[in-house]
Amino acid sequence: MTEPTKYVLSESDLPKHWYNIAADLPEPLAPVLHPGTHQPIGPADLAPLFPEALILQEVSTEREIEIPEPVRDVYRQWRPCPLFRAHRLERFLDTPAKIFYKYEGVSPSGSHKPNTSVAQAFYNKEAGINRITTETGAGQWGSALAFAGAVFGIEIQVFMVKVSFQQKPYRKAFMESFGARCVASPSTETEVGKKILAEHPDTTGSLGIAISEAVELAAKDDRTKYALGSVLNHVLLHQTVVGLEAQKQMALADADPDILVGCTGGGSNFAGLVFPFLGEQLRGGRKRRIIACEPAACPTLTRGRFAYDFGDTGRLTPLTKMHTLGADFVPPGFHAGGLRYHGMAPLVSHLKALDLVEAVAFHQRDCFQAGVDFARAEGILPAPEANHAVKGAIDAALECKAKGEAKTILFNLCGHGHFDMTAYMAYMGDQLEDRDYDEETLTRSLGALPEVAPA
Amino acid sequence: MTEPTKYVLSESDLPKHWYNIAADLPEPLAPVLHPGTHQPIGPADLAPLFPEALILQEVSTEREIEIPEPVRDVYRQWRPCPLFRAHRLERFLDTPAKIFYKYEGVSPSGSHKPNTSVAQAFYNKEAGINRITTETGAGQWGSALAFAGAVFGIEIQVFMVKVSFQQKPYRKAFMESFGARCVASPSTETEVGKKILAEHPDTTGSLGIAISEAVELAAKDDRTKYALGSVLNHVLLHQTVVGLEAQKQMALADADPDILVGCTGGGSNFAGLVFPFLGEQLRGGRKRRIIACEPAACPTLTRGRFAYDFGDTGRLTPLTKMHTLGADFVPPGFHAGGLRYHGMAPLVSHLKALDLVEAVAFHQRDCFQAGVDFARAEGILPAPEANHAVKGAIDAALECKAKGEAKTILFNLCGHGHFDMTAYMAYMGDQLEDRDYDEETLTRSLGALPEVAPA
Repeated sequence: MTEPTKYVLSESDLPKHWYNIAADLPEPLAPVLHPGTHQPIGPADLAPLFPEALILQEVSTEREIEIPEPVRDVYRQWRPCPLFRAHRLERFLDTPAKIFYKYEGVSPSGSHKPNTSVAQAFYNKEAGINRITTETGAGQWGSALAFAGAVFGIEIQVFMVKVSFQQKPYRKAFMESFGARCVASPSTETEVGKKILAEHPDTTGSLGIAISEAVELAAKDDRTKYALGSVLNHVLLHQTVVGLEAQKQMALADADPDILVGCTGGGSNFAGLVFPFLGEQLRGGRKRRIIACEPAACPTLTRGRFAYDFGDTGRLTPLTKMHTLGADFVPPGFHAGGLRYHGMAPLVSHLKALDLVEAVAFHQRDCFQAGVDFARAEGILPAPEANHAVKGAIDAALECKAKGEAKTILFNLCGHGHFDMTAYMAYMGDQLEDRDYDEETLTRSLGALPEVAPA
Repeated sequence: MTEPTKYVLSESDLPKHWYNIAADLPEPLAPVLHPGTHQPIGPADLAPLFPEALILQEVSTEREIEIPEPVRDVYRQWRPCPLFRAHRLERFLDTPAKIFYKYEGVSPSGSHKPNTSVAQAFYNKEAGINRITTETGAGQWGSALAFAGAVFGIEIQVFMVKVSFQQKPYRKAFMESFGARCVASPSTETEVGKKILAEHPDTTGSLGIAISEAVELAAKDDRTKYALGSVLNHVLLHQTVVGLEAQKQMALADADPDILVGCTGGGSNFAGLVFPFLGEQLRGGRKRRIIACEPAACPTLTRGRFAYDFGDTGRLTPLTKMHTLGADFVPPGFHAGGLRYHGMAPLVSHLKALDLVEAVAFHQRDCFQAGVDFARAEGILPAPEANHAVKGAIDAALECKAKGEAKTILFNLCGHGHFDMTAYMAYMGDQLEDRDYDEETLTRSLGALPEVAPA
């Protein structure tokens, strides 16, 4: 084989700045509103939840934000991470397309999530915080924050969506091995959890509920803050190391992606890969096709409304304008727990509304088939969430084959599936069903969106 | 931090040759004997089990053996793999020692095993073989061969030690996701399996039994060969890419290891790291302390006899001179399934007998504590097997602390523990016991060693 399989960078190529797409937006984001007054909020309103440095990043419009040296020191353990050319997958698909993927599964917790958990833990430590609460769905985010807590000596409490908590005892053990505490949500440790358990004792939980619990604890205690693994501007900012590295690596490969693909739950791994490329376009560079892949059972971008909504089920958070299925929406059970969120990052939603990105929804069986095909070709078993991006990339490559086009595809393989074997066993044993969301549930949750007067 | 955390090499630094320590041995290995005649065997005797290229490597005394380009092409996916400086672990231990570790967990199957599975699958493919049988304990080797089979289009059948098969359904699913077939051993698919099941219906199985089953199937069919994941000379040869890369990386770090540490089950990851360094010594270079870490429940190097023995329980294999607990020895249940072998690589045994390496045995609770300490400091959760090396390295670092010596320690972190969470849950839940082997069992199995007249 003449062309390399992977493109590695040295530690000296590790980005020194994150890229902030807010600097290049053709129109600014809609303001974040106070949940009670519906008036735009200021940094002080977020102070109970986040340290000041993160609040400033949340509202910054500076194009480059410096990555603190202690964060880069931790990044160095797995970053820059590899970008692969999928030679064997290309041969398997018999496509003229070139397929590249950035692989984030080499991180300590096995996904892209430590890119932000390490940064968030650092800023909290600097601010004298000694405990961080959070929610987790599939467990990728909780594991990443647990790792970051171990590194910076911060106590971590994770509320894990009950259905995932029950399906994935190993994820809990993994977080505990890093010293974190992990409880099933809804729990009896918060008022909102107790209230939901009283009303729905059999609930499987949801990310929206788990967020409410984590936020409640943080709001109550000065030395406790809250951390979110996706959705927020500063989280997406931290993930841009993915795309910044990928730009250098694609240049090494002497290739330029025509099509960029990522999976979307809250939007952070997708944004991490595509924002630096999209920023080039917004500053007058070439236009690329950018595809967000989401689950058909929780189709936020393809079926949600672009409207103001709460980030959590308990309606404790500020209101943000985003694609949403409604804060009350509870998707049917499916195996990509990280994609079961009712909303979408305001930045990703905004770019979708501006027609700068497109979105597609896939059923889980098709995604698992893509994942198994990928594993047999490339030797890496993707996380169920990442399988949505694999499916999107394979579809794009097959479209190239049908049209005889030798396009260049780049996707984000955001994590490995080592803690998701139950799902693979179900798929390979033909025990996995494609479930659709309930139209009535969606209509009801959209009907309950908060009424916000136009600005 | 001024000193780097990891030392990465580019694809162009990937070794072009494996290092064969047979070229530098002060005394040659004892000959391999025919199990029936007790006469030295020739290459033809091994032909039913292995392709010619591997048999030639098994007996070669050439110092450098070229790595075929198609094997390097597959290696490129994860090799050269990182060598880390354990800054945070050093701070946690408050030791003046410098601790480095080579991390093999970034491979597709999560351990060092693909270094040889890819090579073995390649040579079998070249020889027109379309099926390979093998055994696996913890599942690391079976997963690695499954991956290699997927890459080269070879059918893989894995006999997995029954106790591990039952404890680790995810490992089976992982192998199946690469397209391999995995059955519990002893099975009803072989004569030896049926015989053992008839005599001991409740047996938990052993590596020795699983090897017998895999060998039996291979011997019966011309297009089927057998692959072993450790012990044999050619397997250890393939693993030397680990140490060859580590030599370059330690030079990058401007450091020279005083102490080398690895865990030993069959001996391959240990040999992979230490043989290139030991080779320097044997050619007149500096002498280093080299420590093999094994489980107290299966203490081959520390309590076994250096004698001729069979590699398998069914007594089908040739006789090799090695440290052995006897082919009938079945260790008590413990969680490092990859270290439950009754024998040890003849090369490692020979070097131990020549006092060129030392050995130490650890109980599993101490090893898990070392693993959890390591995870919290370094963010990587080691495989239970690798925990033995972690424990050995930590002990060496604490000895440095006690003596006030700033020595340099390098150990092989041969795999991650993502498929071993049951064991970690048991440890963290205080449900894990230290079990010792039964002295009577050992006396009996040593008493049943084959009687071989001295040459």
